[in-house]
Amino acid sequence: MKYANIAPMMNPKSVAVIGASETPGKVGYAIMQNYVDVGFKGEIYPVNINAMDKIMGYKAYKSVSEIKKPIDLVVVCTPAETVPGILLECGKAKAKGAVVVSAGFAEVGNAKLEEKLVAAAKKYNLPVIGPNCLGVMDPRTGNDTLFLPTYKIDRPKMGGVSFVSQSGSIGSSILDLISAEGFGLAKFISYGNASVVDEVDLLNYLAHDKDTKVIVFYIEGVKRGKEFVELAKSATKLKPVVILKGGITPSGAMAAHSHTASLAGSSEAYKAIFKQFGFVTAENLEDLLYFAKIFDTQPLTTGNRIGVITNGGGHGVLATDALYENGLAMPELGKETQKELRAKMPPIVNIRLPLDIGGDAGKDRFDAALDALMNDPSVDAIMSITLFQTPGADESVAATIINHASKKIKPIVAVSTGSKYTTSHVQVMESAGVPVYESPTSAARALAALVAYSRYRKKLV
Amino acid sequence: MKYANIAPMMNPKSVAVIGASETPGKVGYAIMQNYVDVGFKGEIYPVNINAMDKIMGYKAYKSVSEIKKPIDLVVVCTPAETVPGILLECGKAKAKGAVVVSAGFAEVGNAKLEEKLVAAAKKYNLPVIGPNCLGVMDPRTGNDTLFLPTYKIDRPKMGGVSFVSQSGSIGSSILDLISAEGFGLAKFISYGNASVVDEVDLLNYLAHDKDTKVIVFYIEGVKRGKEFVELAKSATKLKPVVILKGGITPSGAMAAHSHTASLAGSSEAYKAIFKQFGFVTAENLEDLLYFAKIFDTQPLTTGNRIGVITNGGGHGVLATDALYENGLAMPELGKETQKELRAKMPPIVNIRLPLDIGGDAGKDRFDAALDALMNDPSVDAIMSITLFQTPGADESVAATIINHASKKIKPIVAVSTGSKYTTSHVQVMESAGVPVYESPTSAARALAALVAYSRYRKKLV
Repeated sequence: MKYANIAPMMNPKSVAVIGASETPGKVGYAIMQNYVDVGFKGEIYPVNINAMDKIMGYKAYKSVSEIKKPIDLVVVCTPAETVPGILLECGKAKAKGAVVVSAGFAEVGNAKLEEKLVAAAKKYNLPVIGPNCLGVMDPRTGNDTLFLPTYKIDRPKMGGVSFVSQSGSIGSSILDLISAEGFGLAKFISYGNASVVDEVDLLNYLAHDKDTKVIVFYIEGVKRGKEFVELAKSATKLKPVVILKGGITPSGAMAAHSHTASLAGSSEAYKAIFKQFGFVTAENLEDLLYFAKIFDTQPLTTGNRIGVITNGGGHGVLATDALYENGLAMPELGKETQKELRAKMPPIVNIRLPLDIGGDAGKDRFDAALDALMNDPSVDAIMSITLFQTPGADESVAATIINHASKKIKPIVAVSTGSKYTTSHVQVMESAGVPVYESPTSAARALAALVAYSRYRKKLV
Repeated sequence: MKYANIAPMMNPKSVAVIGASETPGKVGYAIMQNYVDVGFKGEIYPVNINAMDKIMGYKAYKSVSEIKKPIDLVVVCTPAETVPGILLECGKAKAKGAVVVSAGFAEVGNAKLEEKLVAAAKKYNLPVIGPNCLGVMDPRTGNDTLFLPTYKIDRPKMGGVSFVSQSGSIGSSILDLISAEGFGLAKFISYGNASVVDEVDLLNYLAHDKDTKVIVFYIEGVKRGKEFVELAKSATKLKPVVILKGGITPSGAMAAHSHTASLAGSSEAYKAIFKQFGFVTAENLEDLLYFAKIFDTQPLTTGNRIGVITNGGGHGVLATDALYENGLAMPELGKETQKELRAKMPPIVNIRLPLDIGGDAGKDRFDAALDALMNDPSVDAIMSITLFQTPGADESVAATIINHASKKIKPIVAVSTGSKYTTSHVQVMESAGVPVYESPTSAARALAALVAYSRYRKKLV
């Protein structure tokens, strides 16, 4: 199998922006502004056919060929009809790769122009992401081709999750959501029409990218389906790959066809294939975030037996329902654990799972419960529910959960439901690498995904 | 059927707080503070056996019998063993009802003491909510017996949703979540052990409460099952009743039994009964909020055909999948609508559902699309997706959606996915009565609930 070599363009030492502009509101202005504002450390070469001496303080060029220095990444945002010619120039100038932001190709029925673009890229073996895309973003290096204004879309901090979306709208809105999450981003890639670089190339790159711990995909169709699943076999051995497939129902497939001309298979067929090759299947946008969070922070697990600790009885009941509905189990506690807990908990506490340690529980009971479950071999992973509305729950409880989770012996997920006061503790826990969920249901979904992937990996060993 | 008359205690003109205290940290302090801080307009009678002249500036009494004025509500937060005696006194003093916040009854195995409590209440036909509960809250009147500190739990604004929870932890955490929502609260009731006033009494009261537009229940079991469903027949004719049943799986039922001693039926049995009597079944905590929001703000609908408008193709695809998975349909647009839209939309827009009006769509396209779908008889309800990350989407788009929704001709739900900038527009829309969802999936779930209840109501006519 042959994969496009996109590594140099994903970590560029130099970027040429074709269509760079000093006029606010222009795409070429927004992209230049990103590179300048974020403090991109490499060389920046603004290119504009009408260029004056300088653009935003950088020496400007009338064409790529004038630059005469190594170019790792070319960002193209000029009108569609100019793009094939520009790519030929880039090829001649030995650029390592291009992101074509410009739209107006196959997606609007202009298949001929897209063929020209592909031919130009192929002539020089130039990897091209796009056209009709947002391009790439990397918080580590400041490589950022997104033309959406920063006041409208927050940029995530750096982290271990790479997010790939064919759809620009899904891509940008999820990127915006991630910015409010505790976990951070490795790479963002919106790849639009996928006319040169496609899902297979991206999966291959991210599977080997050292900054990427978890790969998250939104796809509507896969151009090289056979190669994609073939590659998945090795990729999912290295790290979890979460996929949300749009167009999974018959009507949704029709909508996907008119959106990205994707030919979709049946829901069952896709899910069966995904499972077989170790992908983690997300059912909706919510799942993407739930799953990214747990895979980014928690170790794999050995089984599906979940120990639930709660300071609210109702949440314990709902957690039990949610575990059961997601194919997870709630074990009997080991004899030693029972003895230990009986000694440490007040008489009112029933020593069984879900372990309801009482509405007046504080740090000490949480600590004792977490300690006991961490040491009990009949518990594979822990769901620790803290309702911070109760009198005993405060920052010391959050600190205890962080302390136990930081050992990374077993997966721990936290659940807290609430508004301002609760959120302040949730943010502390998430910053410290504890995945926190708003409800037992979402936590159970995430645990089920972790268990399924852990089992897949274990079978491979 | 006989129902406890709880109307006077739910809208009290006078409140006696038994166990009132000036010592911060005490339950009787927190409750007094609520009545003083929130500006409760009725009379406040602090009662404490060790009372000095005044408590928090109010004339204090050593016992209820000393008050010698009409008492609509007595709030009891003294030690469990004192409660039966206090209730007898309340009965003698002709109090209209009592909330017993105190715990230490059947829930800790002290069934005898609870029997005494029940006997005292019965002797004077005194409606008692609790024991072992948070009690009641009403943002309209400032009637607020919650002893949880206000810095830990935000109070919702006034509105049309009444929320009833047997579990205090579910109750308080959802109350806290509601405070961050666009919709407001009519009544909150946490009723604990339900030893006197139970689900049947509460359902009857709320069904006839004029401030309550939507009733939302979290229950683990129902003491008088037959009476509850019998009453539901008439209650669900008047307004939607959303129920989340905890302990719906076998393991969950065991957890519920140890939490509130509820004997749970099978998941299928409950769901079938709920459906038969017109209840709206919530699957999890998320559903409670999704459903409350749409029922509080949107008119009932005539069918299940949903018109989706979007400025992001990917979201249109996911919406189509979600509608299909929730038993909703996406119709063909009427000929007139097609003609009108063709004239008003740029050529690149496909005139079909989901109607993707383009990533550059602004107010005018949203307005034209909403107008066309509002007037098309083949569309029963509208899902309007706005990704505010795109260049054309701003406050004028939010204003257009508000404008069309305010006509209340057809249900409109909005979807917007994103962080800070998006949230600012979401809040504006929600304040204006548009229910906004973070994903097409949650919006589709809410629409499916609205359609199901609308159909139930229609069949009754």
